[in-house]
Amino acid sequence: MQTNLSELRCVVMGGGGFVGTNLCQSLAPKVAELRGFGRRQGFPGAIPASTTWIPGDFSDSSSVAAAVAGMDVVFHLISATTPASSNVDKVADIEANLIGTLRMLEACRMQSVKRVVFVSSGGAIYGASQMIPTPEDAPTNPLNSYGISKLAIEKYLNLYNHLYGLDYRILRVSNPYGPYQTALRNQGAIAAFLTRALMGKSIEVWGDGSVARDYVYVSDVVAALEMAAIDQGEERIFNIGSATSRTLLEVIELIENLLGEKISIQFGHGRKLDTPVSRLNTDRARLNLGWEPKVDLEQGLKLTLSWMKAQTCFR
Amino acid sequence: MQTNLSELRCVVMGGGGFVGTNLCQSLAPKVAELRGFGRRQGFPGAIPASTTWIPGDFSDSSSVAAAVAGMDVVFHLISATTPASSNVDKVADIEANLIGTLRMLEACRMQSVKRVVFVSSGGAIYGASQMIPTPEDAPTNPLNSYGISKLAIEKYLNLYNHLYGLDYRILRVSNPYGPYQTALRNQGAIAAFLTRALMGKSIEVWGDGSVARDYVYVSDVVAALEMAAIDQGEERIFNIGSATSRTLLEVIELIENLLGEKISIQFGHGRKLDTPVSRLNTDRARLNLGWEPKVDLEQGLKLTLSWMKAQTCFR
Repeated sequence: MQTNLSELRCVVMGGGGFVGTNLCQSLAPKVAELRGFGRRQGFPGAIPASTTWIPGDFSDSSSVAAAVAGMDVVFHLISATTPASSNVDKVADIEANLIGTLRMLEACRMQSVKRVVFVSSGGAIYGASQMIPTPEDAPTNPLNSYGISKLAIEKYLNLYNHLYGLDYRILRVSNPYGPYQTALRNQGAIAAFLTRALMGKSIEVWGDGSVARDYVYVSDVVAALEMAAIDQGEERIFNIGSATSRTLLEVIELIENLLGEKISIQFGHGRKLDTPVSRLNTDRARLNLGWEPKVDLEQGLKLTLSWMKAQTCFR
Repeated sequence: MQTNLSELRCVVMGGGGFVGTNLCQSLAPKVAELRGFGRRQGFPGAIPASTTWIPGDFSDSSSVAAAVAGMDVVFHLISATTPASSNVDKVADIEANLIGTLRMLEACRMQSVKRVVFVSSGGAIYGASQMIPTPEDAPTNPLNSYGISKLAIEKYLNLYNHLYGLDYRILRVSNPYGPYQTALRNQGAIAAFLTRALMGKSIEVWGDGSVARDYVYVSDVVAALEMAAIDQGEERIFNIGSATSRTLLEVIELIENLLGEKISIQFGHGRKLDTPVSRLNTDRARLNLGWEPKVDLEQGLKLTLSWMKAQTCFR
């Protein structure tokens, strides 16, 4: 495995999504070759022109095989469901995410891909953990199908490494936010809150707003993904988060401070799938990858807000 | 939940298989109502006449729904693959075992089943464990798709309990052996060895014979299943094994002693999926279920041999 990004041919599966778009922007000038794969680009024009865009559906195994052919590193960022939607149809969740990924792993094996870097879920995979902040070796009892699929994918990565020598790294990312995250697909509270606030509308909060999450800015996630692509260490699973947590009400207060105005809040019923506090222990990533988050929540919200204001829809 | 078997209506999913046949024989006189479900009865006539037999395929969700309707306890013993076969087509393994089980859980939820007792795999679920004997909270890194499917099913049982209150118990059974296990479906070394020995043929051993497994006699497994059906404790996952392990060569030696003759051994290549030693820590089952194995390997082999000799095919 090369230890230098500049020698690597990489494909970003899910390159048109939130984290994928940010990753493509960062990787494009650094790697030997870059491809993006996905149904569509969420923000046409945001992916650098030097990136080869391969349109395709993750359920179409021949498209997936074409996307990974000749690549050294496959970044796997595709998820067809959200934590909330996954519980509605668990069979569909497994078919889209788990079986889709297995077909991709089979293609990686056939095409002699060297490494898969998988974005797992630091928020969903542990369930209601007894250990806060939660380390990588804590029990994994997901409270949604989304988390179970991610966990099963982690186990198949281990199996493919054991059987066929396909290398891998897993990043259990907490709650990422930042530019290119949209409120449309229920991707995250911050995108939803900022969008509502910018439109001058009230914010809907499920529960009493005391639910606390570990928010991590997307450029820090991208940095971890790049480090994971070339890491030569023994560990394969890394928590990626801010190692702090903020309640929904605290996030709203920060947004109010940024905007200089009060936001109206509507409280709704709490969802059964919510765990009260999620905060990751990121010591392993700090120690083994040399990674640490550089953008705190105040700064990240400011950057995200600036980006949102520059988008046509808010102008 | 009743604490007495005699009040319970039970269905054994996979009732025609090895463990299922033994379980039906034991349960039939003890419970309020007993059904067996499966494609076929492995040994027609072995299931007691008081058991209602429901023929059906696990992939047919309406048959499965009919089988669990009105039942208090569902014993889930169905597995469409073996550890070895599961790696050949991992997608098929997930579809048959994991998705089939999800459809069954959905039926259990709709039909207000009270508890599911699931036979998981103590041999496959931990992978090559660092901790021997292996306790329930050891890391779970299966080295075959069979084990990953079992692990994902365990996680869905936890999710169904969280979302819908469906109670469950999980038995991670090591290597069960005994009457009604056959050499046909690659179910276990002991059935294969005894069959070959009785036919006067040589035994094929993959590897050098030093692979050690934790063999548990089927009546002990059945006792644990019955205890799990009525258990009122806090724990939900229990290792079930002999807490000892024997190498393949040791097993063959015991069989030679029983038969009073030497057996010819052919050594073949070791399989990649074999972990060198598997032995379970069963303290939790002893402490919380009051369970302990009653039949040691010498005695169990003798009982199994007697049963085999009574079968038409060896007479």
